Parts: sequence; structure tokens; C-alpha cells
Amino acid sequence: MSKGEETRQHIIEKAAALFNQRGFEGTALSDLMAATKLRKGGIYRHFESKEELAAEAFDHAWRVARRARHQGLEEIPNTVDRLKGFVRNFVEVRPGIPGGCPLLNTAVESDDGNALLRARAREALRSWREFIETTVKKGVERGEIRREADGETAATLIIGGLEGALMMSRLAHNDQPLHAMRAHLEDYLESALRKN
Amino acid sequence: MSKGEETRQHIIEKAAALFNQRGFEGTALSDLMAATKLRKGGIYRHFESKEELAAEAFDHAWRVARRARHQGLEEIPNTVDRLKGFVRNFVEVRPGIPGGCPLLNTAVESDDGNALLRARAREALRSWREFIETTVKKGVERGEIRREADGETAATLIIGGLEGALMMSRLAHNDQPLHAMRAHLEDYLESALRKN
Repeated sequence: MSKGEETRQHIIEKAAALFNQRGFEGTALSDLMAATKLRKGGIYRHFESKEELAAEAFDHAWRVARRARHQGLEEIPNTVDRLKGFVRNFVEVRPGIPGGCPLLNTAVESDDGNALLRARAREALRSWREFIETTVKKGVERGEIRREADGETAATLIIGGLEGALMMSRLAHNDQPLHAMRAHLEDYLESALRKN
Repeated sequence: MSKGEETRQHIIEKAAALFNQRGFEGTALSDLMAATKLRKGGIYRHFESKEELAAEAFDHAWRVARRARHQGLEEIPNTVDRLKGFVRNFVEVRPGIPGGCPLLNTAVESDDGNALLRARAREALRSWREFIETTVKKGVERGEIRREADGETAATLIIGGLEGALMMSRLAHNDQPLHAMRAHLEDYLESALRKN
């Protein structure tokens, strides 16, 4: 990595933590300068706009969250158990970037506004859905998941349930909603998906 | 209502739509002035700060959302059917204030920040939980809901599921996630709560 690339990466990492906690609108240039210890010119030499920096910061935050949530999943051979592992990771593993789920934060802030950020959030949601739908499809092929199981529905129930429970847990400073949702999704995966 | 009270209410209503779409940080004084057709002094004669105005605007938006979601529920005698009616209203009835659910928006924006707004969102979540828990309790007393049903869990699954699916539907501009979550919650209410 060149010195310039290193600086760019340093800015993205610092910005990711700020944007994920305070939002795009809530993060001021002065916050970015304080966190990166750079002047305005030192930051904007690397990015065309605040939007572009925020989009790169989102992609970084999403990669970090994804890594935490997919931790150890490849070693789980059974597809139903792999989906349960995903739910467990979402609830138990705190990703390195503070502020909660980057997708939830960015989706809620950008759904009426910022088109570039919204596009990144939509792509993140699409890739998350794809992971679940592909896992369900593979499970059906292998005879681990019932033939009539619907991957799209499974993706909606898992993603929607976890994100909604995360909102409740963060607001109330209480992990109970996340734990209750995990138990419910485990039941759902066992009763609606697993082929006995 | 005095002229002053009328103006105050006018500001709250205009501000509620702005804050619910753009967020607290994303709403500038100039936006508030354009929407209310008032000058800075004309707005801040009625509110001590932007925080106070946003808190009042949130309470207003929440009352409007609540009214839409509780529409017609009192006429439904059976408690399980009443909870199903609530889920249906959440999915089908668009409240008059644009920008999605005020609780989701405010919770996500304020969970790392603004204490006054966070307190209002927590109170909204508490009152929503209370409605569901009270309905479950009443259902158990009347013999409509199984004795072992847990109101707290029901509240988490309904609120978390709907809010998460709403985030997905708004981001993708597609109501499918909300419809899939509604069907799932109806199944849950029939199979886990209703006493046969």
C-alpha cells in the first residue's frame, strides 16, 4: 500500500465509526478532522465529496459486520445449522465498528434521501438476502431443507426479525429482544425448514 | 385555541413531516422556515431549542401513527383477532405523516446520541409493548389465549418483526417483506397464542 492509499484507508476506518454512530447528517467535517487528525484538504484530497466518503465508509463497515456474522459458518456442514449459526453470530458477536448495524442505520437514514448511500444499503441488503436464499436452495438440493421452503420468505423473516429486535435492544439498552428473536428464529428454522 | 397555540401546533405538524423524513440532524432551520413560512424568531418564540421542537414533533407523529394502527381495533372482541388487526393495520394503513415509522426513525438516529429524543422513543416503545402485553394478559384471563403465552415475547416478535420488515420494504420500494412478515405473524398468533 502506498502512503496515499494508507491515508485513504485510515480516513475510511475513522469515518465508518463516526457515520455508523452519528449518521451521515450528524457527522460534521470537524468530527472527521478530529478523528483522522487531518485538515479538510488532507481528507478531501482522497474523496470527491462527503457522500463519496460516506459510501466508502459504509462499504467498509458492512464488510466488518459481514465478517463477524459469517464467522465460523463455513465449518458448519448442515445448511439449517449454518443459518442458525448466522442468527447466533448476529446476536452474540459485536462487530468492531460501534453504532449498531450499518445496514439498519444507513437504510433508515437514506430511505427518503441520499441516493448514493441508499444504493449501497440496497446492495448490502441484496447480498444478505442472497446468502440466505442460496443456503436454503443448497439445503433443499441436499435434502436437509423441505422442498416447499421458500428462501425469500426465510430471508425476510431472519433479516427483518433480527434488525427489528436490534433496534429494540439498542433503544432499551437491553439484549432481551435479541435473545427472544433468536429463540423464535431457531424454532422457525427447525419447524418450517428442517426436513426430518 | 389561542392564536399562539395555533401557530405552535402548525409548527409541530410541519416539523413532524420534515423530521420523520430527513431526521433530526438532516432537518435545517431553513427547512423549518420554508415549511412553516415563519422566520427563525417566529419558530423559536414557541420552543426553547431544536431538540424541544423535535421531541414535540415526535410525540405528534407517534400519536398519528398510533391512531392509524389502532383504527377499528376496539370493535374486535377477540384478543387474538385484535392483535391480528393491529398487524394488518401496521402493514395496510399508511399514516398521514410521510417517512415511515417515527419510532424506527427516531430510535435508530438517537440510540447513540440525542438524549431527549431517545427518551421519547423509549416511551413510545414502552407504550406499544404495553398495549400488546395487556392484550395478551386479557386474552389469557378470558380463555382466548393459552395460559403459557408470554406477552413480552409476543411484543418483541410483533414489534421487531414489523419494524425490521418495514425497513426492508422501504429500502427496496417493495411491500413484499411487510406482507411476508404479516403472514408469518398471523401464523404465530394462531399457533402459539390462540387457545383452541
